[in-house]
Amino acid sequence: MPTPLIRLKRVLFGRPLPSDRLDHERLNKKTALAVLSSDAISSVAYATDQILLVLVVLGGAALSYVLPISAVIVGLLVLVALSYRQTVFAYPNGGGSYTVAKDNLGQIPGLIAAASLLTDYILTVSVSVSGGVAQIASAYPELKPHTVVVCVIVIFVLTTVNLRGVRESGVAFSVPTYVFIAMMLALITTGLWHVFTGTISAPSAAPTAPAPLSAPAGAALIFLILRAFAEGCVAMTGTEAISNGVGAFKAPSSRNAATTLGWMAAILATFFLSTSFLAHRYGVMPTAIDPVTSQLGRRIFGGGALYYVLQYATFALLVLAANTAFADFPRLSSILARDGFMPRQFAARGDRLAFSNGIIALAGLAMVLVWVFHGDTSALIPLYAIGVFVCFTLSQAGMVMHWLRCREAGWRRRALLNGVGALATALVSIVQVATKFTHGAWIVVLIIPMIIYLLLRIHRHYEHFSNEVAYTGQSPLMFLHHTVIVPVNGITKPTAGALVYATTISEDVRAVYVEVEPTATAELRRTWQEWDIGVELIVVPSPYRSVLRPLSDFVNAIIARDDADLVTIVVPEIVPRTWWGHLLHNKTALFIRTAFLFRPNVVVTAIPYHIGRSPRLRDLMMHDELLDSTVEREAVKQAS
Amino acid sequence: MPTPLIRLKRVLFGRPLPSDRLDHERLNKKTALAVLSSDAISSVAYATDQILLVLVVLGGAALSYVLPISAVIVGLLVLVALSYRQTVFAYPNGGGSYTVAKDNLGQIPGLIAAASLLTDYILTVSVSVSGGVAQIASAYPELKPHTVVVCVIVIFVLTTVNLRGVRESGVAFSVPTYVFIAMMLALITTGLWHVFTGTISAPSAAPTAPAPLSAPAGAALIFLILRAFAEGCVAMTGTEAISNGVGAFKAPSSRNAATTLGWMAAILATFFLSTSFLAHRYGVMPTAIDPVTSQLGRRIFGGGALYYVLQYATFALLVLAANTAFADFPRLSSILARDGFMPRQFAARGDRLAFSNGIIALAGLAMVLVWVFHGDTSALIPLYAIGVFVCFTLSQAGMVMHWLRCREAGWRRRALLNGVGALATALVSIVQVATKFTHGAWIVVLIIPMIIYLLLRIHRHYEHFSNEVAYTGQSPLMFLHHTVIVPVNGITKPTAGALVYATTISEDVRAVYVEVEPTATAELRRTWQEWDIGVELIVVPSPYRSVLRPLSDFVNAIIARDDADLVTIVVPEIVPRTWWGHLLHNKTALFIRTAFLFRPNVVVTAIPYHIGRSPRLRDLMMHDELLDSTVEREAVKQAS
Repeated sequence: MPTPLIRLKRVLFGRPLPSDRLDHERLNKKTALAVLSSDAISSVAYATDQILLVLVVLGGAALSYVLPISAVIVGLLVLVALSYRQTVFAYPNGGGSYTVAKDNLGQIPGLIAAASLLTDYILTVSVSVSGGVAQIASAYPELKPHTVVVCVIVIFVLTTVNLRGVRESGVAFSVPTYVFIAMMLALITTGLWHVFTGTISAPSAAPTAPAPLSAPAGAALIFLILRAFAEGCVAMTGTEAISNGVGAFKAPSSRNAATTLGWMAAILATFFLSTSFLAHRYGVMPTAIDPVTSQLGRRIFGGGALYYVLQYATFALLVLAANTAFADFPRLSSILARDGFMPRQFAARGDRLAFSNGIIALAGLAMVLVWVFHGDTSALIPLYAIGVFVCFTLSQAGMVMHWLRCREAGWRRRALLNGVGALATALVSIVQVATKFTHGAWIVVLIIPMIIYLLLRIHRHYEHFSNEVAYTGQSPLMFLHHTVIVPVNGITKPTAGALVYATTISEDVRAVYVEVEPTATAELRRTWQEWDIGVELIVVPSPYRSVLRPLSDFVNAIIARDDADLVTIVVPEIVPRTWWGHLLHNKTALFIRTAFLFRPNVVVTAIPYHIGRSPRLRDLMMHDELLDSTVEREAVKQAS
Repeated sequence: MPTPLIRLKRVLFGRPLPSDRLDHERLNKKTALAVLSSDAISSVAYATDQILLVLVVLGGAALSYVLPISAVIVGLLVLVALSYRQTVFAYPNGGGSYTVAKDNLGQIPGLIAAASLLTDYILTVSVSVSGGVAQIASAYPELKPHTVVVCVIVIFVLTTVNLRGVRESGVAFSVPTYVFIAMMLALITTGLWHVFTGTISAPSAAPTAPAPLSAPAGAALIFLILRAFAEGCVAMTGTEAISNGVGAFKAPSSRNAATTLGWMAAILATFFLSTSFLAHRYGVMPTAIDPVTSQLGRRIFGGGALYYVLQYATFALLVLAANTAFADFPRLSSILARDGFMPRQFAARGDRLAFSNGIIALAGLAMVLVWVFHGDTSALIPLYAIGVFVCFTLSQAGMVMHWLRCREAGWRRRALLNGVGALATALVSIVQVATKFTHGAWIVVLIIPMIIYLLLRIHRHYEHFSNEVAYTGQSPLMFLHHTVIVPVNGITKPTAGALVYATTISEDVRAVYVEVEPTATAELRRTWQEWDIGVELIVVPSPYRSVLRPLSDFVNAIIARDDADLVTIVVPEIVPRTWWGHLLHNKTALFIRTAFLFRPNVVVTAIPYHIGRSPRLRDLMMHDELLDSTVEREAVKQAS
């Protein structure tokens, strides 16, 4: 029974799972940390780099700014994490920014949040995967020219794993997260030990920071520092993942999610601050092909086996980060689809309980981005983080409204916390757009309103549609006169099958022969007479050799003349056994169906005739007890 | 009514023509010479070149061989033309090599001829078009790098003209042929005048024939001369075109065709011999970018306006030569299709009475050849002419059999002439393959058997098919029990439409709800009860969320349990108004149709529901006189 394609699908994605397995597919805290926090934690692999890459024009002075900027970002992180902790408890089924903003602020703020999130999820995949591949390429420089291909392969593997379903991806992905955490702890402790014992190893390469020709000062310096801060904020992306995914946690889901959120913030803050501190002390400047953590690894671990383990773990964690988006994008799409803002196909869970269409859409879009930006992380980063901060703002503003409305115990304190968070992130959003606008942020500023427009258009379409199709009348009426037309081109089994079917569904059957070559008509009329199936043969001339035009005119005439209110055209459809068989048979059934698709009161029915494949159909049609006359046939019909 | 696409089609190809215009589309002799002889005559533009390009290793001595070789080829031409003259009279409806070989020698020789002709027609287009573009590029060297693009454009224009129909292409193409003939006559007379008055102008460039380092001698020299002869035989390609196209001539078609054949042979012989003679006397050696006629034109006309007219006329004639194949390839394809050796689609005349599919197939294949061989005539030539000589041989051998069989007056003389022709061309075929094998002829030796295999496979398919579908029994039986299933997912107008249709075509209608989310079922059951349309609602659980599987199981169960011998599944099909509307609606109707396409005794009927477009359908379905109860509906049905 299963075709080769279905068998391939089984091997790649596993057997279908029943819907009641959904509850079992939930995550415990340790697995959830791996699946949902990797986006946030993995930013360590590129956040410090982004700050330094902006400040590089300051030369050696750059390093003195990196620690304060990182500290401000960590402060912001703590504020946002506390803020989201409140959301986790208020929305135990998953309080994504879209839901929170829509529920408390209205449709448009909700859609702004949704559009921002959708773009950010796509960027998460592109940035994380190209960041991960950059880590590997830093250890193996010969991979560098193949960046885009490697990125596409990684995204393809991620897609496959996710189409298998959420639980299995959790298990498969837990190990590398904890290896990364262990390796970073080893790196940081060893690094700090060297710093405090004063045994920092000498740089392996020549210093990469030449003295600046004209260092910016005054307003220009402030703008530069603000931009470095804006780029560094990329460290905070992914903080919202846990609050979106509360529903995926094992019960008690809020409690578990809040704890995991705390772990995540603590790990991220520690790693980010430590990396910035070590970069400062080791005097490490990143380049396009050599990230900070990779350089620190080489310096601190001395480039041996430990260094390679660190690089592999960083790569794996960044792939996990991309995986976070593979959990969240389809989930948000399904919510939007259920609300009628995205095509319905995104709302359905596939064979393996994953939202297959969302996963495939995300993978496709991320691949396009990687391809357009040549897999260059630094080129993609300016587009990133803006959407995240817009969401932070809307989500927390929504929470303020939530507390003002419900007034539970402690609502004042909570509203204040969320309010401060909203203000701070709003400010950061503005800084983001202002400082990065010319570096690519304009694309996001342009695309988010376009997405919102699209979501609204789709919503309007579904609303119109459901209003239009809503059934308002009483019981519907029967059709009073149903005429069935069978186009024939000779007396063959497929035609006989169509005629038998036609006489089964109506009393009024007409066989129509479209006469392209008049020479054959007389012969057909003679055979038809002999055949004697009790259906009249009508010959329609076709001086222009078209089959469709005369048929269409004939149908029009019937509707006009005979007061038929329903016409069914019954056509035999040859179903060849092989793919090339399709090239050898005219697709008449398809053409007729397409031609009449937009015609009211006309239905086209194809009666499949399977070449050399289905003796059962033909056996049944040409029944054993053959009857010779119309009278006997009528008798059978009356009896049935 | 006409869509933009149809309007574009009208502008490019003209309005459809009725079939009875076919007789008026026949050609008079002058037009026929332009349309059917251009292939043969235009070979003058490259045949002498091919001889010289082979002999170039002999240095200056090459020129002394060109005239004798050309004379042998002209002798062969006269023999073949006389031979074909007999065919023209014996086959007044068009005696292509395929027909003659099949009728007299059997199916396989017929198919060898057909396969050879098909490859040669494709090569005619590629060789002539790239040869023509080479002539233009010789006058305007800046065109050289764009050869392939120019070739593709020329083929595209040819396709358009031919899709308009045969007569119009005849008229449009007559002028350039006669201009070419006039220009060549002017060139030859002026050239001969200079030769005999001893006033040959000095070569404009340095002599292009350096003394050979080691000139071939003995067997190697003979082989070289044979190869030069084989390449020069390209001059004879197209000789068969007139005998293929006798049916396109005005009455008396055989007489007219024979006369035209005579003109053609005379013109070709004169031009070819003169060109070779002048090349010899003027000491002209061709190069890849400078053909012989172009060099002669510059020398004899002095490079002025006359030279440019000659180049344009040569280009135009070569384009006409390609056009010959556009007449013959589709005609042969249509004959092969009628005999069941090619897909049926090639047998039908299009709106403008041309065999559209053959024209499009030829254009596509020729474009591929031009692209693969970079539009280089000399690279394509070794593939050419082999097929032509195989056809000459088979056609004339067939004629020998024809005379032996019919024994009309003078059959002995005629059989002898055809016999000599067959022997000579058979010999040349062997020389062609032997001398050019390593220069590309092996491709043709490989491809022709592959085409024959393909033609035979197609023939077998159609034979099996027509045996299988041949209707042998008496009158077919009614189906005894017809069950109609309507998948429903709620009570909407599209569903109501499908249910009304279902009750129109059968007494036994069952509405099936595939339960993906059990929560909605109770509500649907309640509304269904209220709706009360007299159709039972059957709920089928779907634990794996698939709609198709449970439906398929349900249909199987009905066929097994209820002894239904026919099941029709009636599905509403949403027809959106816009293209993007298709993305917003599940293609359930399409999926169901595809899923059941291979199932015997199951028919899938889609009832179109046109979003915001066809109030008439819905008005009719929701008739004015609404009836409330099943009883009243039944009464109406009985009365109708």
